[in-house]
Amino acid sequence: MTDPFRDPRVRALVRLALAEDVGRGDATTIAIIPPARQARARIEAREAVIVAGLPIAPVLFEEHRAEAEIDIEVIEGERAAKGATLASIDGSASSILEVERTLLNFLQRMCGIATLTRRYVEAIRGTTARIVDTRKTIPGWRALDKYAVRVGGGTNHRFGLDDGILIKDNHLAAAGGVARAIERARCGAPHHLMRIEVECETLEDVAQAIAGRVDAILLDNMDLDTMREAVRRARAAIPAIVIEASGGITLERARPVAETGVDLISVGALTHSAPAADLSLELEPG
Amino acid sequence: MTDPFRDPRVRALVRLALAEDVGRGDATTIAIIPPARQARARIEAREAVIVAGLPIAPVLFEEHRAEAEIDIEVIEGERAAKGATLASIDGSASSILEVERTLLNFLQRMCGIATLTRRYVEAIRGTTARIVDTRKTIPGWRALDKYAVRVGGGTNHRFGLDDGILIKDNHLAAAGGVARAIERARCGAPHHLMRIEVECETLEDVAQAIAGRVDAILLDNMDLDTMREAVRRARAAIPAIVIEASGGITLERARPVAETGVDLISVGALTHSAPAADLSLELEPG
Amino acid sequence: MTDPFRDPRVRALVRLALAEDVGRGDATTIAIIPPARQARARIEAREAVIVAGLPIAPVLFEEHRAEAEIDIEVIEGERAAKGATLASIDGSASSILEVERTLLNFLQRMCGIATLTRRYVEAIRGTTARIVDTRKTIPGWRALDKYAVRVGGGTNHRFGLDDGILIKDNHLAAAGGVARAIERARCGAPHHLMRIEVECETLEDVAQAIAGRVDAILLDNMDLDTMREAVRRARAAIPAIVIEASGGITLERARPVAETGVDLISVGALTHSAPAADLSLELEPG
Amino acid sequence: MTDPFRDPRVRALVRLALAEDVGRGDATTIAIIPPARQARARIEAREAVIVAGLPIAPVLFEEHRAEAEIDIEVIEGERAAKGATLASIDGSASSILEVERTLLNFLQRMCGIATLTRRYVEAIRGTTARIVDTRKTIPGWRALDKYAVRVGGGTNHRFGLDDGILIKDNHLAAAGGVARAIERARCGAPHHLMRIEVECETLEDVAQAIAGRVDAILLDNMDLDTMREAVRRARAAIPAIVIEASGGITLERARPVAETGVDLISVGALTHSAPAADLSLELEPG
Amino acid sequence: MTDPFRDPRVRALVRLALAEDVGRGDATTIAIIPPARQARARIEAREAVIVAGLPIAPVLFEEHRAEAEIDIEVIEGERAAKGATLASIDGSASSILEVERTLLNFLQRMCGIATLTRRYVEAIRGTTARIVDTRKTIPGWRALDKYAVRVGGGTNHRFGLDDGILIKDNHLAAAGGVARAIERARCGAPHHLMRIEVECETLEDVAQAIAGRVDAILLDNMDLDTMREAVRRARAAIPAIVIEASGGITLERARPVAETGVDLISVGALTHSAPAADLSLELEPG
Amino acid sequence: MTDPFRDPRVRALVRLALAEDVGRGDATTIAIIPPARQARARIEAREAVIVAGLPIAPVLFEEHRAEAEIDIEVIEGERAAKGATLASIDGSASSILEVERTLLNFLQRMCGIATLTRRYVEAIRGTTARIVDTRKTIPGWRALDKYAVRVGGGTNHRFGLDDGILIKDNHLAAAGGVARAIERARCGAPHHLMRIEVECETLEDVAQAIAGRVDAILLDNMDLDTMREAVRRARAAIPAIVIEASGGITLERARPVAETGVDLISVGALTHSAPAADLSLELEPG
Repeated sequence: MTDPFRDPRVRALVRLALAEDVGRGDATTIAIIPPARQARARIEAREAVIVAGLPIAPVLFEEHRAEAEIDIEVIEGERAAKGATLASIDGSASSILEVERTLLNFLQRMCGIATLTRRYVEAIRGTTARIVDTRKTIPGWRALDKYAVRVGGGTNHRFGLDDGILIKDNHLAAAGGVARAIERARCGAPHHLMRIEVECETLEDVAQAIAGRVDAILLDNMDLDTMREAVRRARAAIPAIVIEASGGITLERARPVAETGVDLISVGALTHSAPAADLSLELEPG
Repeated sequence: MTDPFRDPRVRALVRLALAEDVGRGDATTIAIIPPARQARARIEAREAVIVAGLPIAPVLFEEHRAEAEIDIEVIEGERAAKGATLASIDGSASSILEVERTLLNFLQRMCGIATLTRRYVEAIRGTTARIVDTRKTIPGWRALDKYAVRVGGGTNHRFGLDDGILIKDNHLAAAGGVARAIERARCGAPHHLMRIEVECETLEDVAQAIAGRVDAILLDNMDLDTMREAVRRARAAIPAIVIEASGGITLERARPVAETGVDLISVGALTHSAPAADLSLELEPG
Repeated sequence: MTDPFRDPRVRALVRLALAEDVGRGDATTIAIIPPARQARARIEAREAVIVAGLPIAPVLFEEHRAEAEIDIEVIEGERAAKGATLASIDGSASSILEVERTLLNFLQRMCGIATLTRRYVEAIRGTTARIVDTRKTIPGWRALDKYAVRVGGGTNHRFGLDDGILIKDNHLAAAGGVARAIERARCGAPHHLMRIEVECETLEDVAQAIAGRVDAILLDNMDLDTMREAVRRARAAIPAIVIEASGGITLERARPVAETGVDLISVGALTHSAPAADLSLELEPG
Repeated sequence: MTDPFRDPRVRALVRLALAEDVGRGDATTIAIIPPARQARARIEAREAVIVAGLPIAPVLFEEHRAEAEIDIEVIEGERAAKGATLASIDGSASSILEVERTLLNFLQRMCGIATLTRRYVEAIRGTTARIVDTRKTIPGWRALDKYAVRVGGGTNHRFGLDDGILIKDNHLAAAGGVARAIERARCGAPHHLMRIEVECETLEDVAQAIAGRVDAILLDNMDLDTMREAVRRARAAIPAIVIEASGGITLERARPVAETGVDLISVGALTHSAPAADLSLELEPG
Repeated sequence: MTDPFRDPRVRALVRLALAEDVGRGDATTIAIIPPARQARARIEAREAVIVAGLPIAPVLFEEHRAEAEIDIEVIEGERAAKGATLASIDGSASSILEVERTLLNFLQRMCGIATLTRRYVEAIRGTTARIVDTRKTIPGWRALDKYAVRVGGGTNHRFGLDDGILIKDNHLAAAGGVARAIERARCGAPHHLMRIEVECETLEDVAQAIAGRVDAILLDNMDLDTMREAVRRARAAIPAIVIEASGGITLERARPVAETGVDLISVGALTHSAPAADLSLELEPG
Repeated sequence: MTDPFRDPRVRALVRLALAEDVGRGDATTIAIIPPARQARARIEAREAVIVAGLPIAPVLFEEHRAEAEIDIEVIEGERAAKGATLASIDGSASSILEVERTLLNFLQRMCGIATLTRRYVEAIRGTTARIVDTRKTIPGWRALDKYAVRVGGGTNHRFGLDDGILIKDNHLAAAGGVARAIERARCGAPHHLMRIEVECETLEDVAQAIAGRVDAILLDNMDLDTMREAVRRARAAIPAIVIEASGGITLERARPVAETGVDLISVGALTHSAPAADLSLELEPG
């Protein structure tokens, strides 16, 4: 939830990323580019994108132990037009070329997620629902993926398994039903500041969840009519309840789902299938 | 190139991935599932996929310090039908539920890449060209992304900047032309076992690359006629030259590009934009 | 909240602990004890204690790369009488002597915390309140300290700053009052599964917290009468509210505080000032 | 023995400590405090303490990657009155609040140890004995615990098992007596700059230790008369011998033990059972 | 191949080196040298050497968290006379004394390698051959050893097993001959930018290697006449082939081998048996 | 001093060593050797050596995550004739070939040190002196270098700066003479189990060291007559004093130095300039 660019795990990922790409050094650049050559580079959008992740640029140069002056020219979450300059970098030509691909790989993913998120957010504009992410992130990328969702205008769901109680079908089966599961969750919660959400597939499940006075329900793969009815019943029983919808939420289906009155619509595709944004780094003649 | 599942960097990524998802523990599972409960789980394809990455499963349980018996029921690179069981896992129900999401996140990406790669490979079947990946991988995922491409039937390009000389436009500009760049690359190569490839945008570039006796040329964003002519000239001059085509290679465009006679067709989308495969983990009633 | 003995951070602490004590090796033991000598050791309570932390023993031997058969003879949370054997260890005499002090240092702290916690728990037996810990733990020891509190019969508060919202005086001052702070917390919470607790020093604070419909209130340093009144008003307004008392809770004061009707009584001393339990390791003649 | 604040292991402990408390970020502060808000904080003694550990403050901010100007207003080892300001910190309000608890947890332990140590030191003032610590430290905290003892006016014993030869009962039993153990220790010492100390429980043990020409003897759990006689005999035989007393040294018993003429009095409680000092961080209205 | 002083693995080696030598601190210096004492030190050559490795000096001080102003007074690869000052260091006397031995240990090895390499390079001056290193480096030192060879005027061979294909006797035996091995290497190469070299012990091997159109051949332990004939045949068949000689290359034998017309002469002794250069650090009276 | 093969720092060095050599995998072996191929390899001495370091073999396979059965056929410290088999390894051919070079690089250095040490030890056989190493080791290799010296029959000096007090010329200059330096060392020693040694260049220095009642003296670069006289005076004054000689100790000079009556003769060349032993790994036809 915090600034991911100071997060020690993100730093560890950056070091892994530089190690896997730069390895023992950039053979081409070392052979061809004089070490003292200075250069200016521009990061350019080759398609319209929602900008996300530019603060990773100085982190990459810092972890690569290379000095560079980086001028970020756009604001996180802003839309950049095709051809726009996102940032300019002044530094040694060698360092810029060594970091180039890793930097673009970070940015094209974060911009890609933010851009897709924004499309979902716009699809439900005017409703009271919010687009929320899932834990279907790229392993190692949780903090950055969720950051990009926020930048895109989405809302985060829990960050990990330790960060909220969400009772799913496997738990329900093991516990022997919704009522028992809720009871155990309440007793066994790690502390009193954690809420409880239960996955419901039927109105019967919703009824039991209401009876268990849960904080939130997750309506999984319900048709719109059932969802609407579930919302109606849940709100009537527990006004403050948070209602989440999930399952097969496409850009087309997002709005009708939002209009059922749910609070949150969770979309795994934001982070597991967002296509990369098309960005490039152009080295200006120095 | 080697078995990525023993690679220390992949292990580091796995530990980051478990840490970010499991954190201080799975609050829901700990509260609800009795610690001694044993279970069997199945990993199931919810759509047809090319199978890739299943050897990560025992790695995840090992790094999570959890015992499990894992039975992989398919072969890497095989096509699994919708509904097929990819693996079954016997172990403590808690451990399986703790590892579930991270495991699926690893698998859905690797299967997604292999599945997309296979579509490209099939698109050019019967030609002499091969589909090759790029360095446009997810940071931290280089070894796994390239593994999934291989499993999908693709061929790898260099693994990092230290792993071959590829002279691109920025290098050409800095060196003052193709001839100078090739000369410097030859002198400055880190050792004598590294080949030299040059990016060519025009037939004039190709002519200079031929004159420089390079090992490979990369035809970037050429139209099909120019590409065909470039292939003809390069082959005539240097029979053993490797010819790569890149730039905007869609599934539709792959075959005509292959038919120009190039050896390699590089496709960034294999790793930067492959959608996740749809997989699930089903816990059987124990 | 989970088994701390598999937690990677606890493992890191164990490695730090062995490195700082064993260093380049146990000079005395290497000089005096033949390397092949086998021995049996007993860990003995030299005073009555609540047993906590024995599963660290095999972790220490594993991280020291030493084989040993460890037989834990008591149950976590059980009271052991003075002179009782907590565990017996069969292995190389050298390894046992090398690990001895680090092992006892881990155990004497965890048993010490559990023993003190148990005294508090017993002090309020029969009331509806529970003893809860704080974040006043030894740096590096959060997971183990909180584990020992649980083993002693206490309840955990949040594990870290990312694990619940607890609005304290500094936040209230910065936000300009309880109402504003609660509003911001609700909007700015990282996700919808996190509860909100507010520190209240006066009945006026309690009134505002109630108005903000918080999930929990922390009555800080209130006298018993005020506390009783705060509980009465909060319960009347929000039946499900969780009420915590903190500030100068001694063993004597715990019971009267519990009898005001609060749910939780937080005691920093459990983890910042618990005296070590008196334990020893006795090597049996081999 | 050196400045522990540059010690890589102390740095590792600091990173563990920040990770366990801050985790994914301070949910409360992020929600409530504007990121640009600057603040000044004071660290205040809420009881009289011997000051120890303040140089950890800049280390914490550095490892948290947060800028702050820290003004330490007291000298390590000095007595601070109740209400005294130990340090003031200027920086972002968010960073100060994120680091607050971890910083206090470090300081309250180090001040606690120094304060207890000073009481022992004062108890024997005027004698020729010195108060010395043991290896009964909190795992992971060896360097900091021993630093706090020094600051409190105590003297350090060896830092680890590799740092001196101390033959204890278990070694004596394994070797078959004091004479044999000393002989083996002398031959097997890792190098010639390490001294040899032997634990003695009886005057007979002392006689054998003297015969073995050891450098130091540890009089363990002897009554005062025996101790006095042991000192007399050891001094007469080996004028330069170092004589240490240990076992059940309370504040009351320290002085009579010192008056037997021993050189060192070792007290495990300094580090295993020192209560935390009562400190707080006050954020000034910014 | 790149600047080894920014390489994360070299940094890791530096931290290991400081930890193993400084450990808990420099007992002598702490006891004797006042902490505030500033000093100037000179690194002096006590014999004529080829200078290599001085950029490690600031790395050591940085990793030791000690400030120092370091003035390197010679150029890497330059010959320094006996008595010459290689660098001067201004900083705290304590820090300089703590780092002294580790710094000298790094420098004496790198200068030793460069000095020996230079002797080989001079032995073949005027021929067209180059001196090349091997993978017979000190474990952990690959990047630094190969850097020192370059500084000495030598050329690097591949940096690791992943960095080129070199088919040796064990591979030939397993594959069933040169032709089969080359064919497999060509198919199984990780990517198309890696060259293939084959070890040849006889002219028959050379003939097969030529037939396989390899990029390079390694003539292992051939007598001079056979070597000359191998060169003649290989050059005639494949003008661009790289020819390497190895096996028992002494300073005396280097020139006649070079005169056979080979391109590269590989010498394991450069890195496995170079004697340390004799250097010292002199502290000037401050 | 302890078994270096369990030392976490040695393990870290092993991981660095495998990473730098194996990198992304052994391109040649992967291409040519079928993964299922099993093989037996022998490690063979190609010259007579003192055997040292073979227990590193299983450590390498373990850290490489490769299974192998390793049969060590000689005893550490034993002399192996030219052609002798030191160990045999059964495992996958690929794994053996991947580990081969790193394994030989470890062994050739440790055997080289042990072999050179043994020559020194034999040179002084029959005298009462012992050969001792220095801190002039390869950075990262301290524990292994000193282990190899012990195996060769030498004795270790202190392992690091924290491991004994050795007052050298720089300390003497800073302190203003031998007497002052000894006094400060005695007061400032980190604890009472550390001895004090002083470097002496003249008989006057020796006289002052005797007056200071030091535990050991280091006679640096003295001629034999002076050394003999220094020994005579020191022994007469302090019978238990340890006398070390250092400076320019060649194999020829070792015996006359030993015959002066010194206890220890320290030889930097044992670890900074020992030539590698000539070893090979032979893969048997499988």
